[in-house]
Amino acid sequence: MHMLVTGGTGYIGSHCVLELLQSNHTVTVISNLVNSATDYKGQPLSLKRIESFTNKKVNFKKVDLLDLQELEKTFKSENFDAVLHFASLKSVGESCREPLKYYYSNIVGSLNLISVCKKYNVKNLIFSSSVTVYGTSTHCLLKEDDAIGEKITNPYGQTKYMLEKMFKDVAKSDKDWNIICLRYSILVGAHPSGIIGEDQKCVPNNLVPNIIHVIKGKIPYLTIFGNDFNTFDGTCVRDYIHVTDVARANLCALNRIIEEKNIGFEIYNIGMGKGYSVLEVVKAMENASGKKIPLKIMPHRVGDVEYLCCDPTLAAKNLKWSTQFNLEEMCRDVINWQQKNPHGYVNEDHENLKTG
Amino acid sequence: MHMLVTGGTGYIGSHCVLELLQSNHTVTVISNLVNSATDYKGQPLSLKRIESFTNKKVNFKKVDLLDLQELEKTFKSENFDAVLHFASLKSVGESCREPLKYYYSNIVGSLNLISVCKKYNVKNLIFSSSVTVYGTSTHCLLKEDDAIGEKITNPYGQTKYMLEKMFKDVAKSDKDWNIICLRYSILVGAHPSGIIGEDQKCVPNNLVPNIIHVIKGKIPYLTIFGNDFNTFDGTCVRDYIHVTDVARANLCALNRIIEEKNIGFEIYNIGMGKGYSVLEVVKAMENASGKKIPLKIMPHRVGDVEYLCCDPTLAAKNLKWSTQFNLEEMCRDVINWQQKNPHGYVNEDHENLKTG
Repeated sequence: MHMLVTGGTGYIGSHCVLELLQSNHTVTVISNLVNSATDYKGQPLSLKRIESFTNKKVNFKKVDLLDLQELEKTFKSENFDAVLHFASLKSVGESCREPLKYYYSNIVGSLNLISVCKKYNVKNLIFSSSVTVYGTSTHCLLKEDDAIGEKITNPYGQTKYMLEKMFKDVAKSDKDWNIICLRYSILVGAHPSGIIGEDQKCVPNNLVPNIIHVIKGKIPYLTIFGNDFNTFDGTCVRDYIHVTDVARANLCALNRIIEEKNIGFEIYNIGMGKGYSVLEVVKAMENASGKKIPLKIMPHRVGDVEYLCCDPTLAAKNLKWSTQFNLEEMCRDVINWQQKNPHGYVNEDHENLKTG
Repeated sequence: MHMLVTGGTGYIGSHCVLELLQSNHTVTVISNLVNSATDYKGQPLSLKRIESFTNKKVNFKKVDLLDLQELEKTFKSENFDAVLHFASLKSVGESCREPLKYYYSNIVGSLNLISVCKKYNVKNLIFSSSVTVYGTSTHCLLKEDDAIGEKITNPYGQTKYMLEKMFKDVAKSDKDWNIICLRYSILVGAHPSGIIGEDQKCVPNNLVPNIIHVIKGKIPYLTIFGNDFNTFDGTCVRDYIHVTDVARANLCALNRIIEEKNIGFEIYNIGMGKGYSVLEVVKAMENASGKKIPLKIMPHRVGDVEYLCCDPTLAAKNLKWSTQFNLEEMCRDVINWQQKNPHGYVNEDHENLKTG
């Protein structure tokens, strides 16, 4: 089957493209490339690596979702069976400084996508959402029907929440739609081969990318905000998941849409269903890297909650999906990616240019 | 001062334009005219009436908020001090059937507006929101800091909710913004002169427009959904407000922005703060029209709550605003408008054409 993958050059998208190719799907990727490294011909490096790893071709088009005309051309020239929608701006901090940029790019871009899907009758869509839609809820294990929206602290999270609502309304208005929203917990890891991973360009705001920064010597120590939470070691507990497990969840969702049909609108948590404390993650990263990570404890921040984990039971039941990687493997693979690609994708290109 | 009024040809917008002119503001109106009657030259009939009533000019431009280029031209050619943003699709039923149309028109249109405001440094905005953002909350009296978003039952309501969130994030990102969201309760009435009012084109889904339909003989009876609610007469209680009071609230909000400065982002309920039951409204409309309104009681609908009223205390305090019209006057004025304009604005135009 022929899948359109938006944002298929990015961190999660590229891992999903790899899995799709290995499952013998035809894949077209669109991206505006704003956060993706390319070679001198403008070809995304992540896809080049995937092609040589799988020995299969990816059809790539540089298309910005805000450019409705270009988007339409893509749909006119190909017959897609389903769309996997990863394209999104994703920096929490930037979204607070430039909310309009995020609302345009994520909301208007996605409205354009779904409008064109409707026009060309491609009514199977998988959307990358996030557990951030639960806001600062502190249930033991967040479930899909828990309240969302309230207390979301940034425009990035708002765009995920709003898009879920919009997609739900669209599916409700027309029974032909099949839309699955996957709410990911915190992504860690890289493909075990080390050929693709997260090519972080900006200052990281998640735990593991920050630890990587310390390991690389870019910052002298890891700042931990609060060791006085009501958890077993005093640091916050969060739900982490391997990026390949997330990619596999997308394929499972795709299979459900293809096999079941008429599912309307569904939402699934994609997480481990158990949490790890900040100190546990630090320890696992120390083990994986063989390096000691200096720490600095600061007072805990307003709004941070001690425990945020999501329950993946529904995904296990309906999508026949479960995680295959544990925390050690997440850390192993992210370290492997970093060691093989200390400067992300771009470095390889420089070397290619030098030797080519 | 020079005010830009989006949707200034419509029901609420036109009443606000009238008040602005009477307060000696210069007014530019933009509208895509999709729901507004015009003369053979394409001039909106509501504004023509306002001009002859006030003996003042309104600067009108046909601009769709989705047309960014035209919108920019408007800002380039004029220096606005503030924007009053009424333009919105508003049919609850249609929004459920065509959610994408509503998300485009209301969300993308408003994002375009605020982007252009930012570009041309017009950072004073008053936004027409609705008590619908409270969803089906059943507090005694809804207050501005009560939970919103949860249980909104239709895309129309979602667009109001989402825009409030977006505007809040925009104001938070840049201290120069002054944005006031006014959450209106259910609008009734028309200007006491009878020159402007609601020119309803589609099937009404509110109580008073439905009663008007019965009075006009377009439907044989008024359907009441449920007389077994836990209220004094068994029918639902809602908060109603005269459209001129809403227009005045906009002027009060404008004064606050002009006088206070640096208010950031504020929200105010604009309602009576007390409710009337369906049967009380029917009785008031019977008194105003002198006609008996036949009723048919049906089982109550899923999701309807017995009591929805909002507390306008904060608006009274900060905006120095309070209602001037009671239910009897709302009914008197809507009947007056209907009697003088049985076919809305269009009829007058037909007559003009005939006699002109």
